[in-house]
Amino acid sequence: MTERRHTRKFVRTFFTSPTAVEGEDDSAKMIRRAAQLRGMEAPDVWVPDNEDATAPSMRDEGAQNIIDVVSEHGADFPGEIHPRVVWHRDSPTTRHQGFQRMLEMADPDHGAVDHLDGFVIPEVGGIDDWKKADEFFQIIEAEHGLEEGSLAMSVIIESGAAELAMRKLRDEMGKPDNTLERLFLLVDGEVDYTKDMRAITPTGGLPPWPELRHNTSRGASAAGCIAVDGPYDDIRDVEGYHERMTDNQAKGMTGIWSLTPGQVVEANKSPLPPAEGSWLLEADGREVELTTEDGVEVYEGDRVSLEETADGYVLTVGSDEQHLDEDELADELLDMLSYVPSMDDIVDSMEEFEAAKEAGRGAIAITRAATVRIDGIEVEVSNDRMWDEATYQAVQTPITLFQDVYEHRPDQHEDLAELYSEDVVERATNVGN
Amino acid sequence: MTERRHTRKFVRTFFTSPTAVEGEDDSAKMIRRAAQLRGMEAPDVWVPDNEDATAPSMRDEGAQNIIDVVSEHGADFPGEIHPRVVWHRDSPTTRHQGFQRMLEMADPDHGAVDHLDGFVIPEVGGIDDWKKADEFFQIIEAEHGLEEGSLAMSVIIESGAAELAMRKLRDEMGKPDNTLERLFLLVDGEVDYTKDMRAITPTGGLPPWPELRHNTSRGASAAGCIAVDGPYDDIRDVEGYHERMTDNQAKGMTGIWSLTPGQVVEANKSPLPPAEGSWLLEADGREVELTTEDGVEVYEGDRVSLEETADGYVLTVGSDEQHLDEDELADELLDMLSYVPSMDDIVDSMEEFEAAKEAGRGAIAITRAATVRIDGIEVEVSNDRMWDEATYQAVQTPITLFQDVYEHRPDQHEDLAELYSEDVVERATNVGN
Amino acid sequence: MTERRHTRKFVRTFFTSPTAVEGEDDSAKMIRRAAQLRGMEAPDVWVPDNEDATAPSMRDEGAQNIIDVVSEHGADFPGEIHPRVVWHRDSPTTRHQGFQRMLEMADPDHGAVDHLDGFVIPEVGGIDDWKKADEFFQIIEAEHGLEEGSLAMSVIIESGAAELAMRKLRDEMGKPDNTLERLFLLVDGEVDYTKDMRAITPTGGLPPWPELRHNTSRGASAAGCIAVDGPYDDIRDVEGYHERMTDNQAKGMTGIWSLTPGQVVEANKSPLPPAEGSWLLEADGREVELTTEDGVEVYEGDRVSLEETADGYVLTVGSDEQHLDEDELADELLDMLSYVPSMDDIVDSMEEFEAAKEAGRGAIAITRAATVRIDGIEVEVSNDRMWDEATYQAVQTPITLFQDVYEHRPDQHEDLAELYSEDVVERATNVGN
Repeated sequence: MTERRHTRKFVRTFFTSPTAVEGEDDSAKMIRRAAQLRGMEAPDVWVPDNEDATAPSMRDEGAQNIIDVVSEHGADFPGEIHPRVVWHRDSPTTRHQGFQRMLEMADPDHGAVDHLDGFVIPEVGGIDDWKKADEFFQIIEAEHGLEEGSLAMSVIIESGAAELAMRKLRDEMGKPDNTLERLFLLVDGEVDYTKDMRAITPTGGLPPWPELRHNTSRGASAAGCIAVDGPYDDIRDVEGYHERMTDNQAKGMTGIWSLTPGQVVEANKSPLPPAEGSWLLEADGREVELTTEDGVEVYEGDRVSLEETADGYVLTVGSDEQHLDEDELADELLDMLSYVPSMDDIVDSMEEFEAAKEAGRGAIAITRAATVRIDGIEVEVSNDRMWDEATYQAVQTPITLFQDVYEHRPDQHEDLAELYSEDVVERATNVGN
Repeated sequence: MTERRHTRKFVRTFFTSPTAVEGEDDSAKMIRRAAQLRGMEAPDVWVPDNEDATAPSMRDEGAQNIIDVVSEHGADFPGEIHPRVVWHRDSPTTRHQGFQRMLEMADPDHGAVDHLDGFVIPEVGGIDDWKKADEFFQIIEAEHGLEEGSLAMSVIIESGAAELAMRKLRDEMGKPDNTLERLFLLVDGEVDYTKDMRAITPTGGLPPWPELRHNTSRGASAAGCIAVDGPYDDIRDVEGYHERMTDNQAKGMTGIWSLTPGQVVEANKSPLPPAEGSWLLEADGREVELTTEDGVEVYEGDRVSLEETADGYVLTVGSDEQHLDEDELADELLDMLSYVPSMDDIVDSMEEFEAAKEAGRGAIAITRAATVRIDGIEVEVSNDRMWDEATYQAVQTPITLFQDVYEHRPDQHEDLAELYSEDVVERATNVGN
Repeated sequence: MTERRHTRKFVRTFFTSPTAVEGEDDSAKMIRRAAQLRGMEAPDVWVPDNEDATAPSMRDEGAQNIIDVVSEHGADFPGEIHPRVVWHRDSPTTRHQGFQRMLEMADPDHGAVDHLDGFVIPEVGGIDDWKKADEFFQIIEAEHGLEEGSLAMSVIIESGAAELAMRKLRDEMGKPDNTLERLFLLVDGEVDYTKDMRAITPTGGLPPWPELRHNTSRGASAAGCIAVDGPYDDIRDVEGYHERMTDNQAKGMTGIWSLTPGQVVEANKSPLPPAEGSWLLEADGREVELTTEDGVEVYEGDRVSLEETADGYVLTVGSDEQHLDEDELADELLDMLSYVPSMDDIVDSMEEFEAAKEAGRGAIAITRAATVRIDGIEVEVSNDRMWDEATYQAVQTPITLFQDVYEHRPDQHEDLAELYSEDVVERATNVGN
């Protein structure tokens, strides 16, 4: 059985750059520029794109560009490099082209293969189509004297057939006639998926496809792969990109496709815990972040108002008015409040739980307290959350991700230290091990 | 391997009509009336219903009514005809009845089979149950000297088992012991599905079942079938029916069950692009369509307000106030606006992209500009969207649907020309080919 | 083929209690107290928990506690008893421990097995892992001279692999080498599932996982099992617990994990129809329950207002104003209103439909009428809903659930009679049979 070789546990960013255009050499410049990205602007996985981003007539030239640029810059590039080649479940000709370009790029005589971590195969169909691609990886490795499984295979899920194939991976991997253990990223490709599903929206915008993203995340979980969401087209809409990533992360999909170095920066930071904790107040269906002033959390919106009366308080949320005494008020606010812990907070809580476990206790209460000010009135709130082993492990995910980043991306150490402080970074790299 | 014979690529409407009632012959009239529907009132697929819409004791009479009406009117009916027979995964007796009625209706001596395109099988279970139905189709075709696969088989998905079976179609089709290539429509049946899933809602209304609809759409995509949503019971609620169809279309389910000729009209038009484009403004979680007055797009709601000040503008959305200069205002509005293109717009954009491709360019910017008026103040906004081959193909779906309608439904040509103009219809039938 | 033995058709509550703690014997008390719960405080399924709720070092003592308490109190406990043992898809050692503890607890010499209905296996993986657990059940039954299949097996779905395994149950059950027909509950475990899926939320709260719950419900439907949702951690948040249960029930998941006797009471009552019907008015995206005063349904919110004018009415919903005549007003209100039927109402409607069916009619209209008062103005509204056999059967689910409760939980008869009246209880136990 082929051994798994890829060492990343998380991939935050999947960044495609074009490799050739007709006429001018803009994209030859773009691939060269991509190869020189560093720090937060550099993706975890860089995908020199010899498929959609390169005109069909320029793909041979594009493959040569990839070889040239990867040979020259690959050794210094801080992320992994996985070129995308052409492939289509319905076209043997396209598949043959994809095979030939991979064979070419992986040729040791051309100097790029030492820096290539794998290839990305788009437009796959059912599992047997995935096996055809895997077969070409086997041949390429054999022809070029590379170790079996040394080239990772990532796929773009952009058909209903491919979505269905993911559920079979766990059963198919490890069979003697394939080396599907080389599978690395399962990347959603919503534009072509929308076409394949023949979906229509009034504005021509992409449907949200929540079920596809769930199924990709689940498929990755069950088969030891990593799930990555597709591109977010509106590159000016930073807030929308963040909302999409938050939604993805709640589905277990911590990576996303990035179209620009600006998107790479956002996506590299998004799954990391914030440097500062914050309180959120949910009122009338919306969440508002409170502002910290001298240690007091201040609500500045106008959906919620608070008034002191002779015998207690009147709390107004939207059009609902409640008359409450002091304890009831604190309880009511507690229901409306939630806390977003900082990296420091998470590390603190984990350390506290570890110490308790060491001392023989299986569960502890982690307390969060705050003074909240609404319309000038201050209220003390305090919340206990029970932590047991399961809580500890579920909360650990962002820390594990951080540690994976820290191990594989020394070029980001400086940015991380600046974001969190040296001390927090050091404790975060050690906790939970 | 059995060849696929059904030629429709899209089915907008699945219209069931009862075939017999006890006592009076109301439903004998209803089936006769259904057979004479034309134009937008006529469905793409007409389903004379010998199951739920016919009392158990009247089903033999109902089958005879179908034979009579289809023999008489079938040649002139503009859509396809697929009677529904009885079937149940748990009852061999019911399945045998379904078989016998299909055998009867398909008997060439009875004159109806020339106009029958297939049968609809309700209440299927796992894939082996689907194969039992397919076996009866094989026998019927052999007994009656019909070509193998000439009768399409459609199924109603109304159990968890049937939902699970859809994912296997791609693997099972083409095996030597079945002729499942005859599969045509995968139709959700939410009333019985709700029963099978044992779901409860407070009002007794149907749950929305978004995952079922996704899985049906995906199953259709992976197996070359067509997905159709179940009935919308509240036939007075036209707005709700439209919202359901819009939601379905974003899932790749462009067809829906219709219970009345009025619903057929709505459902036939729903997936077609509008005759006029329109701008939508999203404010405070709601979308409002702007009104066009002398080429200006006017906002008439009161969630958004705009005021000019000495040094710029104040834009108020709900309770949020922003102070902006002219460029910032245009940017902010652009984020809130989206454009619903007309058929004409889509054809224009496709032609523009085709010309660019012809000229050797792989991507172009499609611009939409408008003058928007809020509280008497006019703002120029303009948006570029990058189109590449993938965009082009994803946007093409409504055009492909239109072309499918145009090819198969000459009885709707007049309505379409009236809706869009002769010129737009002609260009829309030619673009993309 | 092993026969199915478990007789419950629905399980509302899955209540875990710890079985041992280190040092003090608090949890020995807790298990003893749990064994003595009765009526609405007693769960349908009680799970003495020898996994997460018991510290690793105390699990042998915990297993002994279970044997002691079940031997002593099991005969009188009104629900089923299914202890949870340790298991993990990735650890043969853990699985071996789980096996040994089950073997011990099921030993007839220890006196508990007569009151044990089965065991709960957490942390299962793919279907082959489920079969390993099933194999241990087979061995235990054979070793102890118990009838094959007499011990039910329930599993906790807390990995992507287990989620995928559920879809295979229908195909795997009944194969000669397993006795998976013993499967009883499919219970979601969202904390560990979140960890396995590596999902992240800003606050550390659990993602909603709608697709998992759908898939569990569907898996149960297709394989004749019962779906149960995981724990709701915030035990103070009764409203949130109710919303979660309502959402689950619309997915066909009528059972939920309960962490306290208080949650058991809420969860036991939640899927039962209310004692009193009520009207809901949906306005501006929110539903408000109307207050009944002297037979009139009164709206007391301020999102909707109504005014009489010289020539009709002005209905204002949020910021939308409509001028309507009397009939239009009634129609408009009807669209906004929905009725939540009481147990009595449902029984009435079912009896009415049964009588009609007896008299040879396949469909009838069930009418709901009310006088609604808004801003002092009274409006008569009346709604007909068509009932056919499918409606009847879909609406029957809460009655079937009630009948299942009534049959298996004599200790709740008094509570039910108090809630609904003796008369309604009697009619509800008889209708539909």
